[in-house]
Amino acid sequence: MDITTKEMAQMTWQEIEQCIKEGYGIILPIGSTEQHGPALPISTDAICAREVSLGAAENTKMLVAPTIQYGYRSRPLSGGGATFPGTTNLSGHTLICVIEDILEEFARMGFKKVVVLSMHMENQNFIYEGSYLVSRRHPDMKIMVMESAFGDIQENIMDVLFPDGFPGWAREHAACMEVSIMLYRHPELVHFDRAVNDNSEEYPFYDVLPPDPRFFTKSGTLWHAREATIEKGKLIWEEIIKQAGAAINKEFPI
Amino acid sequence: MDITTKEMAQMTWQEIEQCIKEGYGIILPIGSTEQHGPALPISTDAICAREVSLGAAENTKMLVAPTIQYGYRSRPLSGGGATFPGTTNLSGHTLICVIEDILEEFARMGFKKVVVLSMHMENQNFIYEGSYLVSRRHPDMKIMVMESAFGDIQENIMDVLFPDGFPGWAREHAACMEVSIMLYRHPELVHFDRAVNDNSEEYPFYDVLPPDPRFFTKSGTLWHAREATIEKGKLIWEEIIKQAGAAINKEFPI
Amino acid sequence: MDITTKEMAQMTWQEIEQCIKEGYGIILPIGSTEQHGPALPISTDAICAREVSLGAAENTKMLVAPTIQYGYRSRPLSGGGATFPGTTNLSGHTLICVIEDILEEFARMGFKKVVVLSMHMENQNFIYEGSYLVSRRHPDMKIMVMESAFGDIQENIMDVLFPDGFPGWAREHAACMEVSIMLYRHPELVHFDRAVNDNSEEYPFYDVLPPDPRFFTKSGTLWHAREATIEKGKLIWEEIIKQAGAAINKEFPI
Amino acid sequence: MDITTKEMAQMTWQEIEQCIKEGYGIILPIGSTEQHGPALPISTDAICAREVSLGAAENTKMLVAPTIQYGYRSRPLSGGGATFPGTTNLSGHTLICVIEDILEEFARMGFKKVVVLSMHMENQNFIYEGSYLVSRRHPDMKIMVMESAFGDIQENIMDVLFPDGFPGWAREHAACMEVSIMLYRHPELVHFDRAVNDNSEEYPFYDVLPPDPRFFTKSGTLWHAREATIEKGKLIWEEIIKQAGAAINKEFPI
Amino acid sequence: MDITTKEMAQMTWQEIEQCIKEGYGIILPIGSTEQHGPALPISTDAICAREVSLGAAENTKMLVAPTIQYGYRSRPLSGGGATFPGTTNLSGHTLICVIEDILEEFARMGFKKVVVLSMHMENQNFIYEGSYLVSRRHPDMKIMVMESAFGDIQENIMDVLFPDGFPGWAREHAACMEVSIMLYRHPELVHFDRAVNDNSEEYPFYDVLPPDPRFFTKSGTLWHAREATIEKGKLIWEEIIKQAGAAINKEFPI
Amino acid sequence: MDITTKEMAQMTWQEIEQCIKEGYGIILPIGSTEQHGPALPISTDAICAREVSLGAAENTKMLVAPTIQYGYRSRPLSGGGATFPGTTNLSGHTLICVIEDILEEFARMGFKKVVVLSMHMENQNFIYEGSYLVSRRHPDMKIMVMESAFGDIQENIMDVLFPDGFPGWAREHAACMEVSIMLYRHPELVHFDRAVNDNSEEYPFYDVLPPDPRFFTKSGTLWHAREATIEKGKLIWEEIIKQAGAAINKEFPI
Repeated sequence: MDITTKEMAQMTWQEIEQCIKEGYGIILPIGSTEQHGPALPISTDAICAREVSLGAAENTKMLVAPTIQYGYRSRPLSGGGATFPGTTNLSGHTLICVIEDILEEFARMGFKKVVVLSMHMENQNFIYEGSYLVSRRHPDMKIMVMESAFGDIQENIMDVLFPDGFPGWAREHAACMEVSIMLYRHPELVHFDRAVNDNSEEYPFYDVLPPDPRFFTKSGTLWHAREATIEKGKLIWEEIIKQAGAAINKEFPI
Repeated sequence: MDITTKEMAQMTWQEIEQCIKEGYGIILPIGSTEQHGPALPISTDAICAREVSLGAAENTKMLVAPTIQYGYRSRPLSGGGATFPGTTNLSGHTLICVIEDILEEFARMGFKKVVVLSMHMENQNFIYEGSYLVSRRHPDMKIMVMESAFGDIQENIMDVLFPDGFPGWAREHAACMEVSIMLYRHPELVHFDRAVNDNSEEYPFYDVLPPDPRFFTKSGTLWHAREATIEKGKLIWEEIIKQAGAAINKEFPI
Repeated sequence: MDITTKEMAQMTWQEIEQCIKEGYGIILPIGSTEQHGPALPISTDAICAREVSLGAAENTKMLVAPTIQYGYRSRPLSGGGATFPGTTNLSGHTLICVIEDILEEFARMGFKKVVVLSMHMENQNFIYEGSYLVSRRHPDMKIMVMESAFGDIQENIMDVLFPDGFPGWAREHAACMEVSIMLYRHPELVHFDRAVNDNSEEYPFYDVLPPDPRFFTKSGTLWHAREATIEKGKLIWEEIIKQAGAAINKEFPI
Repeated sequence: MDITTKEMAQMTWQEIEQCIKEGYGIILPIGSTEQHGPALPISTDAICAREVSLGAAENTKMLVAPTIQYGYRSRPLSGGGATFPGTTNLSGHTLICVIEDILEEFARMGFKKVVVLSMHMENQNFIYEGSYLVSRRHPDMKIMVMESAFGDIQENIMDVLFPDGFPGWAREHAACMEVSIMLYRHPELVHFDRAVNDNSEEYPFYDVLPPDPRFFTKSGTLWHAREATIEKGKLIWEEIIKQAGAAINKEFPI
Repeated sequence: MDITTKEMAQMTWQEIEQCIKEGYGIILPIGSTEQHGPALPISTDAICAREVSLGAAENTKMLVAPTIQYGYRSRPLSGGGATFPGTTNLSGHTLICVIEDILEEFARMGFKKVVVLSMHMENQNFIYEGSYLVSRRHPDMKIMVMESAFGDIQENIMDVLFPDGFPGWAREHAACMEVSIMLYRHPELVHFDRAVNDNSEEYPFYDVLPPDPRFFTKSGTLWHAREATIEKGKLIWEEIIKQAGAAINKEFPI
Repeated sequence: MDITTKEMAQMTWQEIEQCIKEGYGIILPIGSTEQHGPALPISTDAICAREVSLGAAENTKMLVAPTIQYGYRSRPLSGGGATFPGTTNLSGHTLICVIEDILEEFARMGFKKVVVLSMHMENQNFIYEGSYLVSRRHPDMKIMVMESAFGDIQENIMDVLFPDGFPGWAREHAACMEVSIMLYRHPELVHFDRAVNDNSEEYPFYDVLPPDPRFFTKSGTLWHAREATIEKGKLIWEEIIKQAGAAINKEFPI
């Protein structure tokens, strides 16, 4: 059978069977449904998780599973939190169960190489836990848990992206980097005219419940979105794809 | 703000806020990742759930939330079961939790009108349970649980679809109706050349575990896929959209 | 040891041990505690589940375990729902756990043939899920999941039972068939003088929460109870026992 | 409506509704399915729980709900443990859920007076926990948790029952008292010819897993069953009914 | 490596590894955070659990794990219940999970001998359940479940402790025995000047929810605390250590 | 009553009641039981969590609750992982439940100010989730979630601590900072003679299951422990206490 896609959603079971027999692994993209400021759609993380996975899969022997569209609770300090309409969160327990179930199914089908790839910071630890529970039962399956799709970005790229200094990944929510990426990848989904530079009153090293307005912004953009450009988007996107792809290729060499 | 889509995934939080203030409700599409025979992709149910929701939403005051891509365990008698690669199931517990979490979030945002719309037979009862748990806490929110997107089909349509007799919805898996719909909606995803007419050895009124090969087919198509045509697809699709839309409009009149 | 009953509840552990050694299987009856209209007791489903199991076990090598008296939430469209006093529901999670625990114990004891037999429509899927979870751990145990104790009824019997047309099993709740059966089996528990013919305002193909009075009846009888007779009860009962017994014998031949 | 039974299982929903309006409470009997030695059936606890409840209810304004037939894991030191065929245990989590669900339903129906009455020692604490969880949500409902149906037995009765000294309630499993009660109440279910006096090697104040044969007996009778008589059964039974009835009447005076 | 403590908390992983290789077992102390009357600190049970474990471990090949500081819900009849500030309870489900997780980890590390030692009566059954779940998966690990650290106390000791008669262990909460032990072990933590003799109005054989003030005391001391002395503390403490140590040595001989 | 401690464990319920009436809040310290290299005891995190809490509480109106001694699974990249004896992990679900239960109890007692303070990186998100679940039910209680007890450290302190450059907090496990702190606070628990400088082969931005020896070290020390000194310990400890105390005072001013 001649298979023309890496997106499992679009494949028949016989095509998937053939891939498994040929030693393919599988990437599970995990996003969120979370406010992304006035300029970006709430599925930004889900869109990115899917597309980073497809991009990274290009030169690997990896399929890409259907994206998990809902993620763990958006947190005020890195996502704006649950006070925004549209933000639709899973509980920690549910997210653990979802990952556990799906990876257990991958094991059942015979996949030996699995990548769990999240583009939503808050999914951290929960997706590790789901992976751990399955790994304990299937020690012959290797699971790569990418709570972030990339590591340190080279200084010269950072300088282009954040000429006035990098505020930290947590605050870079719905801001320069994400808007740039979406401008580059999905201009049709960006309302750049509504983009704002914003800034919360404080940046504590701890969190507070119920959410405290001092710690996030009214717009939902936690930093400077107006500094986004298509060029920055292309630059960082290609870097992310390169890093993610290299990491997967390193752990699962063809 | 001028809003040009009903797909919540593509909206900003401010657009969603505006819709809620204007009294909009929300449809949650639920599909599956399940083998659909040699001709159809495994996301057939998820694709249909999303598109039926969007179609039904057209003349209603309803948004459509991101689709739940994974559903309850495919069962041998109505979906072929878990022996096919690609079929990726959630447990009953997990599916209940997913529905409960998401509807709880809809309640938090202020939605008063919710439709849970599944295109995967096996999701039945689990999605009702998740809805029930939320309804108990939010009696002011009305939840419509569509475990099937449509009711009885008019005889004249059935005669066109199944000129040799209707085998029952359970057996109509990955067969004439679903292939017709996908030919009509997504010909690019259909391998009609691989479509088969198939037939399990027996059709019991009970189920058996572990799955018994007498009760399903090797191809994963449970009945006649080769009888599918674009015309049949158009006919049944429009009927489904009409029924789903009418039902939603009846329960949630504008 | 000479064993004179098939009802496990009444047996000593040594008798059960002997049966297991002789290759016996076991039927687990599952009922409900649910309103059954003005004429029938709320344990109708539990009584029937136990007695169908005993009847079907007669010519098989099957014991019958103590009945699970409480089932999944009564639903408005097929059971009247949770607005009636007396209706006492388990959640989906609890019912799954109950089935899982009990079947796990059957596995521990050494049973290799298990039948899960429900007489309450709403138990569907939850009892399958509990069975599935155990089956995955004990693939050498064969589990027959009877979410309904019978299949299609022969036309001539249906004509006797429903001379004016069959309203569908969902609506046949606390109506002609169940009252007939109870008149035949337990006349002492039937208040036939209170029996009514009833009819809900609408019969949608979807459900709504909170329960909508349009979709069920004030009496709790969803159709015609006054048409019940002992003769009809005998007719349908014997048919059910025959079908259930034949199915069990087919899957677990002596 | 003239109501002739206190057994909710046999009542219609309208009869139950009438009782609730008249201020009735409800007793939930909880038993077990557990080996009871060579002479007694495995449902001994369930039978007793139901009949004690009915007996105690006689002079109270209390209905009796359907019995929970399965209880928490039989323990070696007080029930023989899980090595006997027929013993069919629920996990602690499941039992908590069952109690919680059922009591929540009683609250929904409007019962304000609930008795949870167990005749299986191992149910202790789990049934309290289920009751606690519901009580926290429904502080206006009074729940009486009878982990034992009776307190101290008068010395003169104990002397008759155990002329050679009382071994403690834990060891009195499937022994003199239970066999006596069953001889009195259900002689048709007792194989007195098979009754034995037995005795485990040791009686530690702790437990051990996996079960240690030193701590229970091969017969499943933990003490002297041959000393049982109908007279002793009548004596202790009437005492139990009296104590349980008095306690319920004290907490829920008519 | 020369190891100078049995307290695992204070050991390095290499020391623990060495002990496991030498065949050491491990004791898991479980206490509570529960009111203990006007004279004792709320961690009395946790302190005692740790110290009994260390004392009993002295002549055994046993390490002592970090103490579980929080236990199951304090009950009115044996601990005063949840109406006292400071009492901080785990639910039954949580406690089962905690025990299950920790014992599973002991199994992973290679411990074959485990003692679960509770000094809080209400932990009963929940800690057994957690142990059971792990034992089922690791039948080669022997788990000793000490829901009480001691058995019957010799009459002559009881006479010294309770010259006016023994009220039963349940009522001996925050009273003579516990205050005596704390006076002997931790005089710095005892406010003996505030100690009271107290007495609830009634001592039923059942429990009631919400807690009924007739069944516990305002002080939280359920019996006579003023009768405590250091001497009594020494006497009973040494007896407890002796019994616990002997039991552990018996089950896990060096 | 004159109260001389802030450690709730050592207080009577009446003292706690008095503090609550006076408006006190409460800090819940959360540690771990996790390998800390050849020089440090496995309870290092638990010891530090307790002592940071007590130190930070000094000038605040805060009590300190008993420490949670067990934390979420040690991860290879920041704690060495589960391959070391002594490391005793809770699952994510269990840790969520523990936090949820305890905070729910704080709410019950009337605390309005709660600090959850963890000294174990892996507890992140799970303790937030437990806190969130309680916050949703008790919006009048303010919960401060300190997944780290401190924020950025001033450059001049970092220069003293890490003259050769800072490897990142994740790798600073069982290394210079923790050994320094323990040398300063608990020299009696440190085996400095066994301390090593170590270094894993690789430092990926993702994780892998089962744990990959390339990503952690044989010693369990992830960086340079031999560079620890008492002076460094004093320096960083005082900084941590200062930061934690200031943050708590800011959120909960006296």
